[in-house]
Amino acid sequence: MSHPSRRVFLTSLATAAMAPVVRGRRVLAQNLPARVDATALRQRIEALSMFGRPSAGTFADGVSRVAYSDADVAGRRYSIDLMHAAGLDPRVDPAGNIFGRRAGTDESLPPILFGSHIDSVPNGGNFDGDLGSLAALGALEALAAVNLRTRHPLEMVIWSAEEGVAFGRGLNGSRIVAGDVKPADLDAVWNGMTRADAIRKIGGDPGRIMDAIRSRGAHHCYLELHIEQGGTLEREGIPVGVVEGIVSIDRYDVTATGFANHAGTTPMADRQDALLAASHLTIAVRQIVDSEPGRHVGTVGRLDVTPNAPNVIPGVAQLTIELRDLSSEKLTRLAERIRLRAAEIARDTKASIEFTSSNHSAPANAALDVQEAIERSAGRLGLASQRMPSGAGHDAQMMAQLSPMGMIFVPSVRGVSHSPLELTRWEDCARGADVLLGTVLEMDRA
Amino acid sequence: MSHPSRRVFLTSLATAAMAPVVRGRRVLAQNLPARVDATALRQRIEALSMFGRPSAGTFADGVSRVAYSDADVAGRRYSIDLMHAAGLDPRVDPAGNIFGRRAGTDESLPPILFGSHIDSVPNGGNFDGDLGSLAALGALEALAAVNLRTRHPLEMVIWSAEEGVAFGRGLNGSRIVAGDVKPADLDAVWNGMTRADAIRKIGGDPGRIMDAIRSRGAHHCYLELHIEQGGTLEREGIPVGVVEGIVSIDRYDVTATGFANHAGTTPMADRQDALLAASHLTIAVRQIVDSEPGRHVGTVGRLDVTPNAPNVIPGVAQLTIELRDLSSEKLTRLAERIRLRAAEIARDTKASIEFTSSNHSAPANAALDVQEAIERSAGRLGLASQRMPSGAGHDAQMMAQLSPMGMIFVPSVRGVSHSPLELTRWEDCARGADVLLGTVLEMDRA
Repeated sequence: MSHPSRRVFLTSLATAAMAPVVRGRRVLAQNLPARVDATALRQRIEALSMFGRPSAGTFADGVSRVAYSDADVAGRRYSIDLMHAAGLDPRVDPAGNIFGRRAGTDESLPPILFGSHIDSVPNGGNFDGDLGSLAALGALEALAAVNLRTRHPLEMVIWSAEEGVAFGRGLNGSRIVAGDVKPADLDAVWNGMTRADAIRKIGGDPGRIMDAIRSRGAHHCYLELHIEQGGTLEREGIPVGVVEGIVSIDRYDVTATGFANHAGTTPMADRQDALLAASHLTIAVRQIVDSEPGRHVGTVGRLDVTPNAPNVIPGVAQLTIELRDLSSEKLTRLAERIRLRAAEIARDTKASIEFTSSNHSAPANAALDVQEAIERSAGRLGLASQRMPSGAGHDAQMMAQLSPMGMIFVPSVRGVSHSPLELTRWEDCARGADVLLGTVLEMDRA
Repeated sequence: MSHPSRRVFLTSLATAAMAPVVRGRRVLAQNLPARVDATALRQRIEALSMFGRPSAGTFADGVSRVAYSDADVAGRRYSIDLMHAAGLDPRVDPAGNIFGRRAGTDESLPPILFGSHIDSVPNGGNFDGDLGSLAALGALEALAAVNLRTRHPLEMVIWSAEEGVAFGRGLNGSRIVAGDVKPADLDAVWNGMTRADAIRKIGGDPGRIMDAIRSRGAHHCYLELHIEQGGTLEREGIPVGVVEGIVSIDRYDVTATGFANHAGTTPMADRQDALLAASHLTIAVRQIVDSEPGRHVGTVGRLDVTPNAPNVIPGVAQLTIELRDLSSEKLTRLAERIRLRAAEIARDTKASIEFTSSNHSAPANAALDVQEAIERSAGRLGLASQRMPSGAGHDAQMMAQLSPMGMIFVPSVRGVSHSPLELTRWEDCARGADVLLGTVLEMDRA
């Protein structure tokens, strides 16, 4: 869509952006017409960290701001106040998502939506979600500061309940907006609260929950800045990751059943040791995952032994196998190899091994034009970038159902996340915020 | 010690016993001068099973008669009543052990002590301990029925708190009698009870706890009939096991420490997966134990993963390694091999592995002359017997510190114990009781 009459606001930017087409990994920096205030961004991330900080802790002690907790409510209040001060007229939708809007020159165009979340896992870090949320605010303020108005309306969002701690992932704010909700979902109970009460607590309106759904095409595109949560960018010394897509996740619940018996009186040859079977399977998962090239991962993260006593041969071992890749076909193939190996292990250990598929999420691809816009934006800032999958789930996954989607990653020191040790250097936070702003402007031209 | 003037009571027995020396595994049955009432034994085992039986359960549903519970108190009351009826003048010592005595012809001789326990593990079976306790009573009744008096006084015992569920094994009644107790031990708390209160609840006298201690040489010998709890006797079709000793147990607490991280964003090559290390170690324990000939066993019975979530790489895995054998040297050698292998695993998986020795119990050997007495007793009944180690701990382990000790095992169907499925056939119970009686008489001659 071209609206020549409105392009005046972007002339200086467009001219600059047209100049050197990004080739290779590093180009000279070009001026952006606006920059996100890096000092304010840092101060706000530090201020937000107070809500859910361990008592007597410091910023380095991380945060527990689980969705629907009092800390979450306080953090949301702080964010809403910032949005008010920025003149964004924030509003909370029936699902508890916080939206702020800046008008475009053509209000008939669908908005460019961008943001992230501020809820955390228990004992989480201060960058996961917070950076993308506060950088979105910073980007809107930066445009206001230079009085630069885009063609498309711009909308920032702070999604509710991204981490899926409360009620699992079923009530993520972005999932509801994507239409994956039904009124009966509100009856579930967590921590003594119904989902309806939880949504009410954060200012949502469970009675109108279906009104939170947006339709396909509701946005021009969706953008999200996020910390990588892995160590690839830091290790390779690249400041910007361009997400190719969010991986598919296949999860299996596996039960190995042997026979619990006295650890002193049962000869080795007579044993049916469920933990021995589970140990072989845990190693098999690793070996099979490692045996194929690619960036897929596989994890046995949970293992519960019954009866779990030093002097009793384990009778039952329950474990989870989680596989992630952009290719669903690869995941199916890996799972099939693991099952075949499990059958051999069951035979060798005289235990039975049962698989149940407990989760399958399809991959969500980032739009190629958005990936290219991110690369151009990074290039204009003189920042090298690298395409990569996102191994973690994000709100962008849901938003990919409604419009083209793209994500910007910035380096996580040592790849640590969901931990108080989670860290992204302040200069990388600032770079990411500017790449987000630049991408908004790039996409506004599309 | 020889007391010719008193041997008259045993003449008929002695004559019979002298005749065919037991060679090989099967000999013709010789008459015992007395036999345990098998019907009464069965009825009493069934009656005792009522105390701690699951509500609406049957005998086959097992028993939960944990020491110091109301069920334990009721089961003890039932047993004491039986002993009263048998004219044994039962008394409860300060530790809560129940003793009953039948005078010998020479009361200056130390008594032959025999018995077992009636407390159970939670969801245990109806033979572990119960058989040996009620068979001891049956043996004394059998001698009374034929008016056969031994030279040595005979003493039966029902030990308190053998299973070590309450307060661990530290307050076993037999352990106290062996002298391993100090007054401060009584202050520990379990289930809201102090040890002192617990002992008081079962009729003991914590204020006089040190008076329960018996001295070395207090008994002529100690005998215990018990179910095997393993499957060797049943599989080999041999009705009587002659215990060579109670194994040494070495237990290690092992902690594998990796690094907890996001299961989606951490490439396989960057992982330090504590569960992967623990899995390799679990398999190594099995392989090393299997690699040496012998009847030693090794078990990883407990494994706890932190944080134990499907989407987090395990950061810590804590496990127990338990090794059992009659030879302490073999256990030390096996542990050393396991440690060496653990160091390799730590290197390969980039996790650290720390060992802490959490328990070492020395082996308790059965006296050779008692083993031979059991073999003669079995032989006179026409029962094949086999020497074997006891992989499980027993009160006999403590009593071995005070006098020569011997144990008689009878077959456990499918080797199941500490389970409602625990089963010893009634004919094997009766055979075991008669072997016990015969061994008492054999030892009386020694």
